[in-house]
Amino acid sequence: MSLAENLHAVILAGGSGTRLWPLSTRQKPKQFLSVGGGDSLIRQTWVRIAAWLDARRGWVVCGRDHASLVREHLPEFPAAQILAEPEAKNTAAAIALAALCLSARDPEAVMAVLPADHFIPPSDWAKYSEDLRLASELAVKEQALVTLGIRPTEAATGYGYIERGEAAGSGGFRVKAFHEKPDAKTASHYLGSPSFFWNSGMFVWRAATFLEELKRGLPETHRAIESLRGHLGSAGFERRAAEVFARLENISVDYGVLERSERVAMIPARFAWDDVGALTSLKAMAGGDARDNFFQGAVYPIDASGNMVISHSKPIALLGVMDLMVIEGEKAILILPKQRAQEVRDVVRVLKDAGRDDLL
Amino acid sequence: MSLAENLHAVILAGGSGTRLWPLSTRQKPKQFLSVGGGDSLIRQTWVRIAAWLDARRGWVVCGRDHASLVREHLPEFPAAQILAEPEAKNTAAAIALAALCLSARDPEAVMAVLPADHFIPPSDWAKYSEDLRLASELAVKEQALVTLGIRPTEAATGYGYIERGEAAGSGGFRVKAFHEKPDAKTASHYLGSPSFFWNSGMFVWRAATFLEELKRGLPETHRAIESLRGHLGSAGFERRAAEVFARLENISVDYGVLERSERVAMIPARFAWDDVGALTSLKAMAGGDARDNFFQGAVYPIDASGNMVISHSKPIALLGVMDLMVIEGEKAILILPKQRAQEVRDVVRVLKDAGRDDLL
Repeated sequence: MSLAENLHAVILAGGSGTRLWPLSTRQKPKQFLSVGGGDSLIRQTWVRIAAWLDARRGWVVCGRDHASLVREHLPEFPAAQILAEPEAKNTAAAIALAALCLSARDPEAVMAVLPADHFIPPSDWAKYSEDLRLASELAVKEQALVTLGIRPTEAATGYGYIERGEAAGSGGFRVKAFHEKPDAKTASHYLGSPSFFWNSGMFVWRAATFLEELKRGLPETHRAIESLRGHLGSAGFERRAAEVFARLENISVDYGVLERSERVAMIPARFAWDDVGALTSLKAMAGGDARDNFFQGAVYPIDASGNMVISHSKPIALLGVMDLMVIEGEKAILILPKQRAQEVRDVVRVLKDAGRDDLL
Repeated sequence: MSLAENLHAVILAGGSGTRLWPLSTRQKPKQFLSVGGGDSLIRQTWVRIAAWLDARRGWVVCGRDHASLVREHLPEFPAAQILAEPEAKNTAAAIALAALCLSARDPEAVMAVLPADHFIPPSDWAKYSEDLRLASELAVKEQALVTLGIRPTEAATGYGYIERGEAAGSGGFRVKAFHEKPDAKTASHYLGSPSFFWNSGMFVWRAATFLEELKRGLPETHRAIESLRGHLGSAGFERRAAEVFARLENISVDYGVLERSERVAMIPARFAWDDVGALTSLKAMAGGDARDNFFQGAVYPIDASGNMVISHSKPIALLGVMDLMVIEGEKAILILPKQRAQEVRDVVRVLKDAGRDDLL
């Protein structure tokens, strides 16, 4: 596979959501979970591209509390390329920090920005690599910000959408417009059209192109980040970065940079993709039986059907139950009907109100 | 309270059932479980009478594997009074061994034989003590084998029944007949009559009376046990006891002794009683909420009702589920509808077939 010589992977590992509680917790967000019994999502993110990308070109941006976990999951990464943010300020800041570091190392650096908590089935990893290759080709040739678009498989209202424009080479397209999370009717229309794609949060661009477009979209952020350039590698960097981050705007790269840029293109992804946004996402990654039970770990279903069960450390026996979700996390156990999986946040709120932050 | 001077408590702790799995296991049968968050059942058995009985008159018969657990739960008991059976040979053998030891210590010993795994609500402990006092009075005065009968509260088919005869003093009655576990129709008839009682397995008698009646009902067992008398306290006792137990008949004291005796009386118990024969029994011992959820440990029910949940070490959150039983044991988690609580044995069988003896 021939990929741009200057390609670097920037894995975004700053997520700290609670939608996968009790599997994910603040100490161990979902990117560190071993999903499907194999590697953690963050490690899968790296392994997917490790065949053709040297670890010397692997970077991670993460929260300070998670830096040691990242080192554990990606032991081959140079310590200096694990960038711990002083505080979480959303994706624009995280990517800007990485772009600063990369551009200092290599002015021609191309960044593949890859969220650490997405799932792509291993059978599609070759297609994924090919799509990244096309995206980096397009990013270099057109000096564009390239986003990977996912063909909708349902009328989802939880994602932003990309509307594609004219063809742009390398199998890609110019982006005609970004659309915010739609209502159900609009989502249904998007699903029926070949022009609309989910905005996956996976991007490829030259670090230099990104910094130019950051300057246009978020000039304050650009100036603040650039003020750190002279201190890269110095003893005072950490303190200065903390001062800079404290004042940065909290804004996503989509709103702050992409939507304000004239140089945005997209590649339609040809691989299956899941952002593991709810416990039900795990179904595809677990083993199953003939009665539509999906499970991971030591699970013993007896006269039970349609259940989704994850055992962390204690074997789980089920008798005579249907369509239930049973999740044993490291610290707690959650039981709810499968069709109410979206309500995990309510559980988290109740536990918070009950003073059980220790479980979250 | 004036109880017979010579009264000893003999706690039978040989049970090893699996009906309370995963709370109870072979290593830790139900008598060692802390039910309702307080003392273990075996310790409650002792604490109920400790107010008026010195630990020097407390005895336990248990399996060899559980002797150290018994010492842990009853640290005040003299080690020599924890009688470890070489092998389990049912209640006739267990009680015969205790009767031998007691009668050697005190020819006038009176034994209150108390299963270690029954539950009596603390509010009824005074009545319980008074009933034991009446039973011991009757046992001494009439040289009788006295059994405590429980007034049926439902048409249970899982217990043997006692039919009372004429009054016998001290509030007791002669026993007219024992009846084996009845069918539903017969059980319903028993429930409607004032003459029928559940055979609780709690007995009071003089050790000497018991040995006489053992000789009549089970002469072989009597001879074998008496052959150990000359070796009590000697170095060779354990080896000889093992030889004797290997040949003993496996039979309950009810079938082997009481049903074959002419000297059986009963005291109608005035206390509430539960033999904790199924997980549902635990309901009465757990906390509850306004939506008929019963739970023990850290349990967080959200929009959930009618559930029975026991948390051992991990907090359990429930959302939107009804009439479920969720039991987190030390080694495993069990989930089933409440109305199928009697089928726990099927779960145990499936786990056994799956080679998971380690969980049982």
